[in-house]
Amino acid sequence: MKTFQPWHQYPLISKQLKKVNQCIMDTIQTSYADLQNALLAMADNGGKYLRPSMLILAGKASMPEKETSTTIIQLASSIEVLHMATLIHDDIIDDSDRRRGKISIQARFGKDIAVYAGDLLFTHFFDLMLKATDNHQYLVKNAQTMHAVLNGELGQMDERFNMKQTFNDYLADVKGKTAALFKLAAEEGAFFSGASADRISALASFGENIGIAFQIIDDILDYTGGTKLNKPVLEDLVTGVYSLPLLVALQDEAANEKLVPLLAKKREMTKDDIKAVQTIILNSSAIDKSRQLAKKYTDQAIAALMTLPESSARTILIKMTDQLLTRRI
Amino acid sequence: MKTFQPWHQYPLISKQLKKVNQCIMDTIQTSYADLQNALLAMADNGGKYLRPSMLILAGKASMPEKETSTTIIQLASSIEVLHMATLIHDDIIDDSDRRRGKISIQARFGKDIAVYAGDLLFTHFFDLMLKATDNHQYLVKNAQTMHAVLNGELGQMDERFNMKQTFNDYLADVKGKTAALFKLAAEEGAFFSGASADRISALASFGENIGIAFQIIDDILDYTGGTKLNKPVLEDLVTGVYSLPLLVALQDEAANEKLVPLLAKKREMTKDDIKAVQTIILNSSAIDKSRQLAKKYTDQAIAALMTLPESSARTILIKMTDQLLTRRI
Repeated sequence: MKTFQPWHQYPLISKQLKKVNQCIMDTIQTSYADLQNALLAMADNGGKYLRPSMLILAGKASMPEKETSTTIIQLASSIEVLHMATLIHDDIIDDSDRRRGKISIQARFGKDIAVYAGDLLFTHFFDLMLKATDNHQYLVKNAQTMHAVLNGELGQMDERFNMKQTFNDYLADVKGKTAALFKLAAEEGAFFSGASADRISALASFGENIGIAFQIIDDILDYTGGTKLNKPVLEDLVTGVYSLPLLVALQDEAANEKLVPLLAKKREMTKDDIKAVQTIILNSSAIDKSRQLAKKYTDQAIAALMTLPESSARTILIKMTDQLLTRRI
Repeated sequence: MKTFQPWHQYPLISKQLKKVNQCIMDTIQTSYADLQNALLAMADNGGKYLRPSMLILAGKASMPEKETSTTIIQLASSIEVLHMATLIHDDIIDDSDRRRGKISIQARFGKDIAVYAGDLLFTHFFDLMLKATDNHQYLVKNAQTMHAVLNGELGQMDERFNMKQTFNDYLADVKGKTAALFKLAAEEGAFFSGASADRISALASFGENIGIAFQIIDDILDYTGGTKLNKPVLEDLVTGVYSLPLLVALQDEAANEKLVPLLAKKREMTKDDIKAVQTIILNSSAIDKSRQLAKKYTDQAIAALMTLPESSARTILIKMTDQLLTRRI
């Protein structure tokens, strides 16, 4: 099987993404040979390298004349490794069999190994970060970001089956579990390229806004995307995680009346019940309204980019943002 | 119920351990209120604070005139939080219902929450470490220690059901999963008290050796300690983790002959099979030989301490080391 090479996607940074890939492959180290191979395969295969791409492009967009440094490569790698660690642990929670088109670590090695495998990658995240920089302010920012990610995940767990959840509760969790890492990537890319405070803060704002939009679209696709890759549809709903489309539908009186008795069954919902919830949402204006909200965040992301000088990197970032709104998988 | 106060155990450092306790309580932060309370209870209740004690005492033993600094308190707290994180994840692997005399996080909240709860504490470990110091060499040492712990756990998983496992394989895993953290604690205590290179290395050696002895005794108690608290007896054996007493018994021809057909059943071993394995080991010289080996490591730990000047802290560390050999729970 041909290895998927994410760096083909963005020729402007293909050389750099290749280095990121090499850096990650060189970093992963465990005495458990089978697991080592599985982690290397996961790192090498199917990842879109979205976060590393964003970090490198943020560097180039904020300082178009600057060469990408080794520090930037190591930080981009650290963020992808942190992302991989959270994916492995998420798959335990979600009981997912597939990840990036391959059998997941938890399905192949069991949940026990998957717990430690994720932990191992957390340690590699810190290795890489400490190799990249001794800037204390940014080391602290990294620790805070990891905390925000976990706290977002835990906040979401705490809200399970809560029909009274507000949009602000949802947004707080999304800012943590998804947007914090995008924000860090874009901000670090700018800071470690030596950009001015204004540009760093523009990139941070871009990262956070695109991260929120990314998660909203992900949650929309959970309801609309029957063909969504690598993830069983509506798994969130089954486990009591009520994402934006459902929360919006619950605001609609007619939809609410039909949804409440179904949701009240909680874990006892049958496949037909779940299908019914999906149909109610698709027949309401919830998907449209959710998409409008995602657009609000991509608009803000683009507005932040527009404060930067014109450059090829900025053009790609704008294109990535636009594509986000129309992605179907 | 009266809260267990570990700092009563060592009057010389009771004030400092109280501060460690406060520092940990102030650090744990999540928006999931029930989990927050459970983590605070875990931090406050039943922990022996063995590693923080060792760190603080290592500081005092290496620099008897020096007051314990805030840095030392924060590092001692960081090591206990890292230890808590590994305990929470270990309980997922072992399916343990009890921890520190209370219901475990995984039994109370489910494995899903426990995965994230351990991850959350990993982030607090880094928070505290970065709050304590910007010494890059020691930040890297912390990341390496976390890597050693995980790699030791994974090495052990990789060796499951392997009857050909050597003592060196066992030792390598123990050095990682248990001794690395003791070594770091003792070494950091000395370094951050401003001790000389000789004393730092003596304390590092003390920490590693006592850590190895600690794990050997733990593994002996798994076979001998029918009354062992908070942990089902022989759970390691059931999951295919062959610890020192079993590996030693397998070296004995007569015991080997009886053990091999039982162990060959792997996960299919019945309760009677497990009891039979235990009886074979108790009737062999394996426990004695394992205990002799533990003594070799506590002797080395004490030899390292004897290179330090006489002090009350050194006296306590020697006493702790002696007690280790005779502990029954």
